[in-house]
Amino acid sequence: MPDKVKVTVLGATGLVGQWITLLASRSPWLEVIQLMASSRSQGRKYGEAAPWRPPMPLPDRLQEADVELVDPGRVEGELVLSALPSEVAWPVEEELARRGKIVVSNARPGRMEPDIPLVNPLVNHDHLSIAEVQHKTRGWRGRLYKNPNCSTAILTQALAPIHREFQLEEVHVTTLQAVSGAGIRGLWALEIMGNVIPFIKGEEEKMVLESRKILGELRGDKVELAKFKVYPTTTRVPVQDGHTESIHAKVSGRPGFDEVLRTLETYRSGLEGLGLSLVPERPIQVLDGPRPQPILDVLSGGGMTVSVGRLRVEDGWVRLVALGHNLVIGAAGANVAIAELLASNFL
Amino acid sequence: MPDKVKVTVLGATGLVGQWITLLASRSPWLEVIQLMASSRSQGRKYGEAAPWRPPMPLPDRLQEADVELVDPGRVEGELVLSALPSEVAWPVEEELARRGKIVVSNARPGRMEPDIPLVNPLVNHDHLSIAEVQHKTRGWRGRLYKNPNCSTAILTQALAPIHREFQLEEVHVTTLQAVSGAGIRGLWALEIMGNVIPFIKGEEEKMVLESRKILGELRGDKVELAKFKVYPTTTRVPVQDGHTESIHAKVSGRPGFDEVLRTLETYRSGLEGLGLSLVPERPIQVLDGPRPQPILDVLSGGGMTVSVGRLRVEDGWVRLVALGHNLVIGAAGANVAIAELLASNFL
Amino acid sequence: MPDKVKVTVLGATGLVGQWITLLASRSPWLEVIQLMASSRSQGRKYGEAAPWRPPMPLPDRLQEADVELVDPGRVEGELVLSALPSEVAWPVEEELARRGKIVVSNARPGRMEPDIPLVNPLVNHDHLSIAEVQHKTRGWRGRLYKNPNCSTAILTQALAPIHREFQLEEVHVTTLQAVSGAGIRGLWALEIMGNVIPFIKGEEEKMVLESRKILGELRGDKVELAKFKVYPTTTRVPVQDGHTESIHAKVSGRPGFDEVLRTLETYRSGLEGLGLSLVPERPIQVLDGPRPQPILDVLSGGGMTVSVGRLRVEDGWVRLVALGHNLVIGAAGANVAIAELLASNFL
Amino acid sequence: MPDKVKVTVLGATGLVGQWITLLASRSPWLEVIQLMASSRSQGRKYGEAAPWRPPMPLPDRLQEADVELVDPGRVEGELVLSALPSEVAWPVEEELARRGKIVVSNARPGRMEPDIPLVNPLVNHDHLSIAEVQHKTRGWRGRLYKNPNCSTAILTQALAPIHREFQLEEVHVTTLQAVSGAGIRGLWALEIMGNVIPFIKGEEEKMVLESRKILGELRGDKVELAKFKVYPTTTRVPVQDGHTESIHAKVSGRPGFDEVLRTLETYRSGLEGLGLSLVPERPIQVLDGPRPQPILDVLSGGGMTVSVGRLRVEDGWVRLVALGHNLVIGAAGANVAIAELLASNFL
Repeated sequence: MPDKVKVTVLGATGLVGQWITLLASRSPWLEVIQLMASSRSQGRKYGEAAPWRPPMPLPDRLQEADVELVDPGRVEGELVLSALPSEVAWPVEEELARRGKIVVSNARPGRMEPDIPLVNPLVNHDHLSIAEVQHKTRGWRGRLYKNPNCSTAILTQALAPIHREFQLEEVHVTTLQAVSGAGIRGLWALEIMGNVIPFIKGEEEKMVLESRKILGELRGDKVELAKFKVYPTTTRVPVQDGHTESIHAKVSGRPGFDEVLRTLETYRSGLEGLGLSLVPERPIQVLDGPRPQPILDVLSGGGMTVSVGRLRVEDGWVRLVALGHNLVIGAAGANVAIAELLASNFL
Repeated sequence: MPDKVKVTVLGATGLVGQWITLLASRSPWLEVIQLMASSRSQGRKYGEAAPWRPPMPLPDRLQEADVELVDPGRVEGELVLSALPSEVAWPVEEELARRGKIVVSNARPGRMEPDIPLVNPLVNHDHLSIAEVQHKTRGWRGRLYKNPNCSTAILTQALAPIHREFQLEEVHVTTLQAVSGAGIRGLWALEIMGNVIPFIKGEEEKMVLESRKILGELRGDKVELAKFKVYPTTTRVPVQDGHTESIHAKVSGRPGFDEVLRTLETYRSGLEGLGLSLVPERPIQVLDGPRPQPILDVLSGGGMTVSVGRLRVEDGWVRLVALGHNLVIGAAGANVAIAELLASNFL
Repeated sequence: MPDKVKVTVLGATGLVGQWITLLASRSPWLEVIQLMASSRSQGRKYGEAAPWRPPMPLPDRLQEADVELVDPGRVEGELVLSALPSEVAWPVEEELARRGKIVVSNARPGRMEPDIPLVNPLVNHDHLSIAEVQHKTRGWRGRLYKNPNCSTAILTQALAPIHREFQLEEVHVTTLQAVSGAGIRGLWALEIMGNVIPFIKGEEEKMVLESRKILGELRGDKVELAKFKVYPTTTRVPVQDGHTESIHAKVSGRPGFDEVLRTLETYRSGLEGLGLSLVPERPIQVLDGPRPQPILDVLSGGGMTVSVGRLRVEDGWVRLVALGHNLVIGAAGANVAIAELLASNFL
Repeated sequence: MPDKVKVTVLGATGLVGQWITLLASRSPWLEVIQLMASSRSQGRKYGEAAPWRPPMPLPDRLQEADVELVDPGRVEGELVLSALPSEVAWPVEEELARRGKIVVSNARPGRMEPDIPLVNPLVNHDHLSIAEVQHKTRGWRGRLYKNPNCSTAILTQALAPIHREFQLEEVHVTTLQAVSGAGIRGLWALEIMGNVIPFIKGEEEKMVLESRKILGELRGDKVELAKFKVYPTTTRVPVQDGHTESIHAKVSGRPGFDEVLRTLETYRSGLEGLGLSLVPERPIQVLDGPRPQPILDVLSGGGMTVSVGRLRVEDGWVRLVALGHNLVIGAAGANVAIAELLASNFL
């Protein structure tokens, strides 16, 4: 194995940033050498600046690391993993790409740009190649990659094999999203304890657009958007981690139950066997009975597997319930998996 | 006002039974004179046998009442309100109807029988007249009425004006149902705290069937089932009271947003002004913003109003989120409203 | 009954302010004529500025009222009920008292001043008379009264009869406090869902000091502080409303179980029969079994009664668990009860 | 290292049994070869019979193992780890000890017998030697050891250094116990969601008795009970895992804050460095600020460390808040740590 690729994490103290730091620190391909965040954390030890949330401990070395202020001019990693808030991400990420850095970003801005790959690594890693045109289109010496919105990552992972086999026509989806999807300071306790909030700002627009790009087809250095339409309703429920999605999808092929089941069960990402720490044995696991459930299934495949249950096929509609870890496959895990992919044949 | 009609409550100690007892005790048309339950509660004071759950207190008189064992031969009320479990309800209710009692039941068995009215009183009170044929079809001296399944009551109330104005073709609905819908001993804490369970036994079948009967048309002494098809996915969430439903309905009329909004806002049950305690000013209230929410809206209209929000109209699909109190409009409130209707022109 | 006394509510949009507005609007002695809050709510309708939390609806008249900016010069009520945050309360309340207003305040500053009555109305309403010296000590034309900290109000109500009968020596108390005690924006969901936080800023100091003043004896126009010592540990638990307190109290009398029980059960406030809406039949109710419990008992006596259970007496220690509604007896209810007392023989 | 000692787990499907199976399967000293449970699970694969709750996965080999019916005559392990319910444990455990098995049991019966060691391995592992007299006192060929009640294990671990240094006189403790302490089917959701239940059956008696034995002194083959008295109040709170305990302890030494702090921080179990998988670096960690908290600290030291915070020393009272994992140090972890101790110099 070649030397590990050096990594700087931006926005390292938030929930997604913590998971990126954790997962990158456990990757055989990556070495976290720098943590950057806002002025609130600047100069503090990482272990103190970020009240630790993931269920696995962070190496002492990183707990003791100093948090630096986000500053493109001081980034030392070759690879930059960005968990910056969407409001501030773009100018920083653009500047880094201009300066020659390879940036993998969880932030929304740029996701729908034709020359910026939007990649769920267990679904459309072939789209990564698009980034090569950025030198031409934007004059960047580096490159910028995006991982998807959390709900969209889970949706596309559950639907990828179905779309490729039976062609989606329209997708009706109701999400039941975890509180951690809003960040540590995202929801007040009295807003959500024992409650359902039937709206998540900006989420439905992202699902409508991003899913068509992720499940679109690569034509040369362009992605042809998939033609299906998504009708989402997004809600927040008092769950810690794990977005549940009730999906009713109309397909133009007229598959039977067994065909759909087999298609889901045999789906593979194509990245198995490369030694990547974030590629699970199966991108999808199909469960019987009253499953999937967040508290039982959210960490399947290390948080990268989407669990699917309640499969029903009737009148051309495929109905199922999908569950994925919003911070892993839905954010940090997808981000670091892209980083591992790039690092594993880097330079 | 005539004398109050005397009422016996069956299954009075469970959650639905408590609400029936409470609501009947507050009705100007009804007088609760007898409480029956299983042998576990027999002979105990009602206030001790039933750990009280509704947020309003019960009159002392009823707290002190003795709970009797369910026994059709000892029922003293003219009107019998049944919250019996579905497994044991039918023979008791049938025997009571045979003996001449007027029975309004929350239990499932019999709901789809053509000669037994299945009534959400704010939607299809005209169907009550069907019961008159029971004398002929079954030789009963009394009559038997059914209120709907909880999720179906809420669904039909939200959709009634839309169906009548624009004709439903198909309904995709994902429910987020409260824990109280399973009864006091329905779910273990470790099953549902911080979790979502994406399956509720028997619930989806009820929604498919019952909604077509409730929204069906009365033709003489028969109901012609509505023609739309319902595709439900039912889930349980850690909410105390209040079922939320994400509804995506295809309609054959091609209404615009404003037409649908107006149809919802102007909907009335036709029972306003009769002095019934369980008929709210508006069967449906339409809310803006991230609403409806269980903790804010569940008691609107005394628990009889269905709150509707997130209205979207696009490509022939009407999308909205509906919320109703599963124990009131979804069970006890519908039950007692039927009783009030019958009592208000009884004899 | 004389005319109702006109009331202005300060800080009307927060949780305590909502409850004060609600309870005052339901009092036969008070008429809410003005609602004031911060600039965030200024100029909005009250029903829109304050997402309504109490389980009872507010009169339409008040929902439609305009919220004004807090300004001592524009206060129109004779009586001012203050739910202002402690950081901003004192100068406003002082100015109002100087201008001749009667102010009843829930805010901390001033509670321990010798010439300002600190009153749990069900415990030490005789202390109200202290306020008469304020004219002399401060030159105020009006007067200022304080209701206690929430945990202290509940503690003193449970202990008042025990202290008066058996003399407290020391009190060890561990609180399990509800989320609503921190206000609508007091705790993030990810901080408290499924968690316990064993610290509440400033709370323990308040319990130590305030309980000795409330249970102290009135000597002329002064209160002699009670001599017992309080050792508190305060925690936050994921409960909506209702502070539970595990109290272990050493008493110098050596009572038996039956004596303590009788003392608790026969305790009365002395305000019964005056027609005050916030004086419950019993300030304390003693419960058997695994009680009190927030979801079952928090609204007893309209939220003014403290529920006591788990009574044990051994080795000079009285142990019990007390529960009270933190927003009613612990804040708004105590506040409005003082207002009713003042109004009922006002002028 | 010698061969691993073969282990049979009794009551393997419950929560404690799952954790014992997991922790034993990860020990370098133990090999789980047999899983026994009630007739409900008999003949099923373990992975199906026991819906898996711990946050770490079980080896496939054990998931596929057949669950056998509890039967002393068919136990194949040399070492038997018992998570049997207290109602059925004694005759089984006695029979196994008679037949020559080494039994380590989590069940209550026998804990206070003078010839049966009651051991929190991080506190009083020297008491293990008592078991040698069982041959004489009971004629057993094998031996029986007990781990403590969950709340008592946590209490004694926090207090051991304080008692040994400053002598406890009396201990007032209020527990806030997690739902998992009652087992998978221990509490109904509607009982505990958003609630506090201020009573746990049998718990307080156990804390009073067991803590005096665990902190007692070994005199030859007997334990002299410690002389302090415990006054507990036990409550249940809506937390998944982790019992929090608010402890107010009177000590006869008159230590200052710094002495108590140092005593807690320097405490060691004496088992460090033996290669036991369940002996943490520190039995106690002392935390600053609003800690310990279940969701942040429950897994410290793999669930074996007790986290202590809110330390205050005043008037001879030491006050602190302790948190431990009720299923690890409070049950399965203590159990398996004893097993490791026995296995590490077994034969």
